[in-house]
Amino acid sequence: MAVATPVVAERPPSLDALLGLARSDMAAVDELIRRHMDSPVPVIPALADHLIAGSAKRLRPLLTIAAARIAGARDEACLKLAAAVEFIHTATLLHDDVVDSSQLRRGRVAAHLIWGAPSSVLVGDFLFARAFELMVGAGSMPALEILARASRVIAEGEVLQLTRAHDLDLSQDVYLEIIKAKTAELFAAAAESGAVSAGASPERCRSLRKYGQDLGIAFQLVDDALDYSGDAGALGKNPGDDFREGKATLPLLLVMARTGASERDFWVRTVDRREQTDADFERTRELMRQTGALQATLDLARTYAESAKVALADFGASPWRPALEDLADVAVARTA
Amino acid sequence: MAVATPVVAERPPSLDALLGLARSDMAAVDELIRRHMDSPVPVIPALADHLIAGSAKRLRPLLTIAAARIAGARDEACLKLAAAVEFIHTATLLHDDVVDSSQLRRGRVAAHLIWGAPSSVLVGDFLFARAFELMVGAGSMPALEILARASRVIAEGEVLQLTRAHDLDLSQDVYLEIIKAKTAELFAAAAESGAVSAGASPERCRSLRKYGQDLGIAFQLVDDALDYSGDAGALGKNPGDDFREGKATLPLLLVMARTGASERDFWVRTVDRREQTDADFERTRELMRQTGALQATLDLARTYAESAKVALADFGASPWRPALEDLADVAVARTA
Repeated sequence: MAVATPVVAERPPSLDALLGLARSDMAAVDELIRRHMDSPVPVIPALADHLIAGSAKRLRPLLTIAAARIAGARDEACLKLAAAVEFIHTATLLHDDVVDSSQLRRGRVAAHLIWGAPSSVLVGDFLFARAFELMVGAGSMPALEILARASRVIAEGEVLQLTRAHDLDLSQDVYLEIIKAKTAELFAAAAESGAVSAGASPERCRSLRKYGQDLGIAFQLVDDALDYSGDAGALGKNPGDDFREGKATLPLLLVMARTGASERDFWVRTVDRREQTDADFERTRELMRQTGALQATLDLARTYAESAKVALADFGASPWRPALEDLADVAVARTA
Repeated sequence: MAVATPVVAERPPSLDALLGLARSDMAAVDELIRRHMDSPVPVIPALADHLIAGSAKRLRPLLTIAAARIAGARDEACLKLAAAVEFIHTATLLHDDVVDSSQLRRGRVAAHLIWGAPSSVLVGDFLFARAFELMVGAGSMPALEILARASRVIAEGEVLQLTRAHDLDLSQDVYLEIIKAKTAELFAAAAESGAVSAGASPERCRSLRKYGQDLGIAFQLVDDALDYSGDAGALGKNPGDDFREGKATLPLLLVMARTGASERDFWVRTVDRREQTDADFERTRELMRQTGALQATLDLARTYAESAKVALADFGASPWRPALEDLADVAVARTA
């Protein structure tokens, strides 16, 4: 079950305004995505489609479009950048699922369980290369630089997570460093590259980058909370995956810190040695509720979402501004 | 007593001239490679160095330098492109070794056996992203386009190989299509991107691309022959790997075609079902000798090497021309 967040909301946050403003652009982005995932090698479009068709939200390319349009873009360069952003994201998902041996992704059996890990690795490489071909087509070297750098930072974040994530004594600072790199960097770069390609001022590019980054951090914090509070049907993946992998996300770091010495043996066995019974996950959720670890994670997400909204202060009366503010609220209020 | 007949020996082909001409450029490329494989995440430089330090030849970046200089490049943009080419190559090696579960690479234990497949996948992604950062630094969008396209074609070639390579009835055309994509494309793009960044004419860019492509095909044909005729110490990997994986390379396709119906059961068991005894590899080598399958593979490599040399006809009296002709000869004459 979801933990209730005490939000004093006049209207429930919704993506309707944003999706309405971006509708025709996003239809064009979908068309670009579909065209560029094609290949004469049949496994490639089949495997790519399995993952890409499963994505209803396309949040990251939506950010690129919104940032470009709020910054005044009138041409179509941002459409190619947005498709490139979705390809980078899909490539990292394919590789992550191989790295984590995940079973479910976006409500479907993970691709590597159908086509094998080798195909997932290589189709990820294909999509990553396609992303750069699309960026070349967009014709903005500064946007390309931002997304190349983001791709590198994401890989660094993934390796950092891989080598440190089972560390019971991981600091909250390193945890934040990991989610900034593996998740928030692409949100930040998606928005910044859209703004840059629109020829926005350096200040406005920085503001939109900041919006994307804070939104991305909030998004990942909620993701990490939902892995303990969500349900499989809504999530499209199994809750408890992080716990079973012994992945030290914020809710777990907080509950471990707040339960102190009395539970140390429990955490060493379940997280460090990953010797778990079915009851251990339930006990962990109960301890998270008792210690307020989940609520503290969601409160931090709320703080970042508010910070993201503040970053939009310079964008005056553009209709995109309240739509992006709603996105920040939705990121925190979501249950899936 | 008989007088020894003096053998009219042309000088043995050697890379000395090419390495001499490129010495200071390649030292600068090495420095760029070393600087850009660094990361605050310690596994990344350790794993990257394991593979990159094992590479004595750096053939592909050497091609970029040679193509840029023979085309008249006076600036240093080609150095960054050359480092990017080596990173793309290293990233594909890391992913290939995971895909093929290889044991040895460049005379060392394959990285995934030391750091695990997940780290190999993610460090490959890191190097690939770094390659694009270096290309952005080189500042040539046309060169970037060539290398982005090549990266995508390589991934397509790898997937094609993965899905078709165990096919006993693979045609020689599809085999050539696979090696053009997975190997020759990067040789072609390495040379073409160097030429493009030097501002060479379209004709000269095409000539250098053709040189790289034909050289790459020759190189892979010899590689595939050496997997049956080479020895482990010189190769830096185990001969017989292709046979054990049931990979349908040209020597195998030729020996299967030339032995006809009499050996069909042997090939179905050893290649298709991969049920092999130690004696099967030796028997296959013997059949390759009897049928001339190895010699025919090397003859085809020689044809492509000669075609590569012809592609240099427009480059007059440049000292790089005989040096690149030597490279084509060395690619065919090598035993490792």
